[in-house]
Formats: sequence, structure tokens, C-alpha cells
Amino acid sequence: MEAISDGVFAIAVTLLILNIVVPADSATHLLRAIGAQWPSYLAYLVSFSTIGAAWLAHSAITEYLDRADAVLIRLNLLLLMVVSFLPFPTRLLATYTGEPGAERVATTLYGITLLLTSVLVSVLWRYAVREQLVRPDANDEEIQVLTKRLTPGLAAYVVLIAVGLILPRVAVLGYLVIAIYFIVPFRHVRHRPV
Amino acid sequence: MEAISDGVFAIAVTLLILNIVVPADSATHLLRAIGAQWPSYLAYLVSFSTIGAAWLAHSAITEYLDRADAVLIRLNLLLLMVVSFLPFPTRLLATYTGEPGAERVATTLYGITLLLTSVLVSVLWRYAVREQLVRPDANDEEIQVLTKRLTPGLAAYVVLIAVGLILPRVAVLGYLVIAIYFIVPFRHVRHRPV
Amino acid sequence: MEAISDGVFAIAVTLLILNIVVPADSATHLLRAIGAQWPSYLAYLVSFSTIGAAWLAHSAITEYLDRADAVLIRLNLLLLMVVSFLPFPTRLLATYTGEPGAERVATTLYGITLLLTSVLVSVLWRYAVREQLVRPDANDEEIQVLTKRLTPGLAAYVVLIAVGLILPRVAVLGYLVIAIYFIVPFRHVRHRPV
Amino acid sequence: MEAISDGVFAIAVTLLILNIVVPADSATHLLRAIGAQWPSYLAYLVSFSTIGAAWLAHSAITEYLDRADAVLIRLNLLLLMVVSFLPFPTRLLATYTGEPGAERVATTLYGITLLLTSVLVSVLWRYAVREQLVRPDANDEEIQVLTKRLTPGLAAYVVLIAVGLILPRVAVLGYLVIAIYFIVPFRHVRHRPV
Repeated sequence: MEAISDGVFAIAVTLLILNIVVPADSATHLLRAIGAQWPSYLAYLVSFSTIGAAWLAHSAITEYLDRADAVLIRLNLLLLMVVSFLPFPTRLLATYTGEPGAERVATTLYGITLLLTSVLVSVLWRYAVREQLVRPDANDEEIQVLTKRLTPGLAAYVVLIAVGLILPRVAVLGYLVIAIYFIVPFRHVRHRPV
Repeated sequence: MEAISDGVFAIAVTLLILNIVVPADSATHLLRAIGAQWPSYLAYLVSFSTIGAAWLAHSAITEYLDRADAVLIRLNLLLLMVVSFLPFPTRLLATYTGEPGAERVATTLYGITLLLTSVLVSVLWRYAVREQLVRPDANDEEIQVLTKRLTPGLAAYVVLIAVGLILPRVAVLGYLVIAIYFIVPFRHVRHRPV
Repeated sequence: MEAISDGVFAIAVTLLILNIVVPADSATHLLRAIGAQWPSYLAYLVSFSTIGAAWLAHSAITEYLDRADAVLIRLNLLLLMVVSFLPFPTRLLATYTGEPGAERVATTLYGITLLLTSVLVSVLWRYAVREQLVRPDANDEEIQVLTKRLTPGLAAYVVLIAVGLILPRVAVLGYLVIAIYFIVPFRHVRHRPV
Repeated sequence: MEAISDGVFAIAVTLLILNIVVPADSATHLLRAIGAQWPSYLAYLVSFSTIGAAWLAHSAITEYLDRADAVLIRLNLLLLMVVSFLPFPTRLLATYTGEPGAERVATTLYGITLLLTSVLVSVLWRYAVREQLVRPDANDEEIQVLTKRLTPGLAAYVVLIAVGLILPRVAVLGYLVIAIYFIVPFRHVRHRPV
């Protein structure tokens, strides 16, 4: 389960670059044409960070797992499906940033995909804890730290999806902040041998 | 053998997203344009689930394997070739759903690829059992459970390919049901440490 | 070294499917349009088989390796570069089969890439043997079997490249035969635990 | 951390081939059309070599690591992001070599991405050494050899980026030389079992 999950995370994250296309009409002002593509770079950055954060959380969960049951494996497949799907809303966002009506639609769909990713990571962990699939030697405090880290993101995503209906760019920046916030403090969990 | 197989499954499953293109003409109605692409999402879902199911079956087989011989490795390569090929009929299906004649052709080719995947997974397992490549400590009951799980899908695929000649969409939904049915009950086989 | 090599083989083999495009103008005769793409399927089959054969040979070599030195790692990177490059001549071949002059050019470039792959696999193995990087417990007979398996392909590729200048399709079929011939008899080498 | 890093390196390196497109208008002179694409092949070669060199350095670092902390994991994600990003400037370079103004822009952006890759590899290593994340049994001499190997490339990249503003092609050849120089002498570090 870990091998194929790591594979899917790595591939999804690397495929994101295919969303950034080379500007076509730029004999004279290539630099300006590249600059005009800023939504592509921003979308790349947010999606890369979000998948990176989800992968860190997933690794932390896998480390604590003692065994997997059928439901956990299905939940994990569902999570991988949403992660694999993310390049599509990323492309939508990159394409329609700047077009008033469409930008709102693209940002909302993008936010929903991020929320789903986050929900599934959370559900995966809560299911593992509830069904006692976690290693017996993991102490309760560690388990609670991880549970707490995975929860607040959900509320933040819901708020930002609503904000994005009015101010789509604020929402996108918010998604970036969440991803970076998730990436940062897994130090408590991961201070261990490679 | 397991490393490259897991790699191919992970990549094939992640490449599927490249089949979903961003709608081009949607300054005013992006949501409607995205909705009109439902065949792409359905094809994505069915192919992802089928590869997921094949991967679960493949993992179960690999777990029981004690060693591999030349024929098994070749059969495995053949299976990987069919799995790697699946994104193409998936794209066909997504493109031609809705065009009466072409939809039938696309659905049939799609179904044949799924059938082939399923046949090869089955053949791989039966060959391993017959040639005694399975671990000596695997008990007969476990082996029979796996053999039974892998068989009925074949008949269902044959029936659905025939159905698809008249009712292509029923066939596609049937393919989804088979995949989900396959994903669900591997719990008997996989209740073991990660 | 093995992890990244397996990764590159798996990805190169799976990316090949992106070379097969969905026919565009086929409201009425999709089956015919798909049939007309036979060069794409043939090129897919030959490239998949060749990378599969190279991967089997590479796995056999890796199994016998005791350690790697700087030259071996560079040779391996070179081999991975040629394997990663193969999707391009594959696409060339698929595109230009049927156009008299261009077919010859495409087939020749394709054949040269296959020859290079084969040469590099051979060089990798011979270098490892000469520099005594092979496991001390590998007996001489096994080493010679592998050396012999890797050699005749080179001559066959050279002959087929020449043949391809006059009869390109004969050459392509020949490339397929070589790949299958390489895939088949690694049984002597691989009869061991997974 | 190592699994996903190896995955990203392998995928990034293999995706580079998608940048090389089949020439379209070549019924009569396919060979010439292919020859005219030399910037694509050169860009492929330089990017492949650079990622290869970064991967070798990364492997060497990972081998010396005893454990990872939160900062190291974030630095590593940042490095993976830049490596995943490289196919885009590679495509830019391949597309705009030959167009006077644009070539300079493309070469500069390309050089900056290479410099960033190199800086991040260097920072990763220096951070690991400073925070004593390196294995206790690694002797100081080995650590200094690796530190020294990773440093001079940075200055060379800065010089070549400046040169590229006037002579872009000299800069690109220089980038190739740096990559090959990096690939060559990791023998001191890697003379150990696979």
C-alpha cells in the first residue's frame, strides 16, 4: 500500500508541470508572455504544496499503521483517486484565472478537490485509530497530536471555498497558506530515522 | 517484479487524468461546459477503479508468490502492457460517448481491454498455483478464496461486452460495478501487516 | 541505483501510450479509423517489448552486482537516458509508417535507438564482469550464460537496420522478434525467489 | 523521503521526452526536419544530465543521513519542486533557441532553475551537516569531500547565467559541462555495495 501510494503522490506532483505551457507568440516579449502566465505558476505552487502536505500526512499515518484492513485500503484508493484528479482542477484554475465568471467556478471546483483530499486524509487516520490498526507502541499523545493537526484544515477549506465565491484570488492564496501550514509542523511527528 | 509492477499500476492510474481536458469555450458557462464532460469523469472513474482492483488482485497474488519463473514474468509483462494500454480506450470512450455508432465501438473496445486485464490477472494466478510457485505455507482454503474471487468477473465482462453493443452506457456502469465489487472483498486476503 | 532504474523503465513503458492518439474524424467509421492506426499499435508493441526485455536484462545484471563504481553508475544513467528517449522515435515510427521516404528515416532512427539500448545493456554487464563488481558467489557458468544472451542481439539489430533501409516493415517486425526472443529465455537466470 | 524523492527524479527525467515533438511537415525531408530540432535534443541532454547529477548528489546525501527533521523534509520538498519544474524551462529553451531576443530570456530562466536546483542540493547537505543529522560513523574527510564537490557548481552557474545574456549557446554548453563534471567524480563517495 505504501509503495503505490508514494508512487501516485510522486507522479501526480510531477505531472503538474505539464499544465504549464510554453507561450506561443513571443518573438519580441517572451519575458512579458511568461509573466502573464502567473496564474499557472501560482496554481502549480498551490497544488504542489497541497499534494506535498497530503503526502507528509499520509507518510505519518503509514508510519503509525500496524496493519491495513479492507476498508482502509479502499479509503486509501479513494484518496489516491482524488490526488490523481487534482491536476485537472489545477489546469482549470490556471486557464480561467482572470475571466470573471469562470474564475469563480474554477476556484470553487479547485477548493472542493482540496477539501476532499483533506477530508480523506483525516478519515483515513480516524478510521485507523478507531479500528485499532495503529501500532500498539504508539502513545496516545502522539496520536492526538496527529489527529489535531489534521482537523483544523477542514474548517479552513470550507471557509475559503465560501470566500472564493466572492474573492477567488484570496481563496487561492488561502489554499497556499493552508498547505504551507500543514507542511511546517510535522516535525513533532517525524523526528526519527530515515 | 513487484517494484516495476507497482510502478506501472501507479503511473497508468495517474496518467488517466491527462485524458480530461479543460473545456475551451467557456467564458460565460464554464460550469455547464464542465458538466457536459461527464463521460470523461465516468471513464476516469471506471478506469481508475478497474486498475485499482487489478492492482489489489496483483498485490494479493504477489504476496502468495514464493518465486517467479520465466513464464510468470512474461505473463506479468503482458498484464502490465494491457494495464498501460488502458488509458487509450479510456480516452476513446470519453471522446465518443454520445455519438451513437462510435459510442458502441468505443465501449466494446474498452470492455475488451478490461476483459483482457481480468483474464491476465486470472491466468497469472492459476499459472502460479499450477506450477507451485505459491508459498508452501499458504493454506488451500486461502488459495481457493482468491481463485474464486478472480473468476466470476470474466463471465460478467463477457456479458457486459455483449450488452454494450445495444446499451453502451449500461455496460459502462456495469464495468464500474465489477471494479467496485472486486475492490471490496479482498479483506479476507489482506488482513495482515503493512 | 535499482530504485531509480526501475522507476525510469516503468515510466518510459507507461508513457508510450500517450503516443496513441484518439482518431478525430470518425463519427461514422470509428472502427476503420482505429484500424488505420495500426502503425501506432505496432510501434507500441515493439517499444513495450524492447523496454521490457531491457528491463529483464537490467534486473538480471543488478541481481548479480555486488557493488557499483562511478563508471557503472554513469553507464547506467546513459542507458536510462536512451530508454527515456525511446518514446520519441516510437512516435516518429508511428507517425511516418506509410509515407515512403519518411518511413525509412523513422525506421532507421528507431532501429539505432534500439541498438544503442542493447549495446548499453551489454556494455554495462561486460564492464561489471571485467571490473569484478559481480557477486563473488556467482559461478562462471551463470555469468557466461548471461553474457551469451546479451551478445547476438547486437548483430541482429545491425542487420535489421540495414534491411530497414529497403524494407522498413520487415525491420520493425524483426525488432519485435528480437524483443520477444530476449524476453523468453531469461528463465535460466531468474529461477529464484521474488 | 527517499522513495518519493527517487520517484520524482525518475518521473521528471522521463517526462523530458514529452518536450520533443514529432516534426509535422516532413513528407520529403524528415531527416532534415529532425536535424532542425537540435535545440530540443540539446535541451533534453542538458536537463537529463543535470537531473541525473542532482539525483546522484541527493543519493549521496541520503546515504549519509541518519535521520530527518522537519526543516530538512521541507527543504527536500522544495528541491523536488524545482526538479519537477525543470521540464518547463527545458521546453522554453528548446522552443526559443534560434530566436535572438527570446533565446536570451529562455536561457537565463533555464540557468536560474539549474542554479536553484544546485543551491537547494547544497543547502540540504549543509543543513544536514550543521544539524548533525548525518550518521555518526561518517568520517569528517568524507563529509568534506561531499561538501567540496557541491560548492564550485554554484559559482559556475552564476558565471554562466551572466555569459548567457550575451552568448546563450555558450551558457547551455557550459551547463552540460557542469552536469557531466558533477556526474563523474562521485566515485569517491559511492564505492560501496548496491
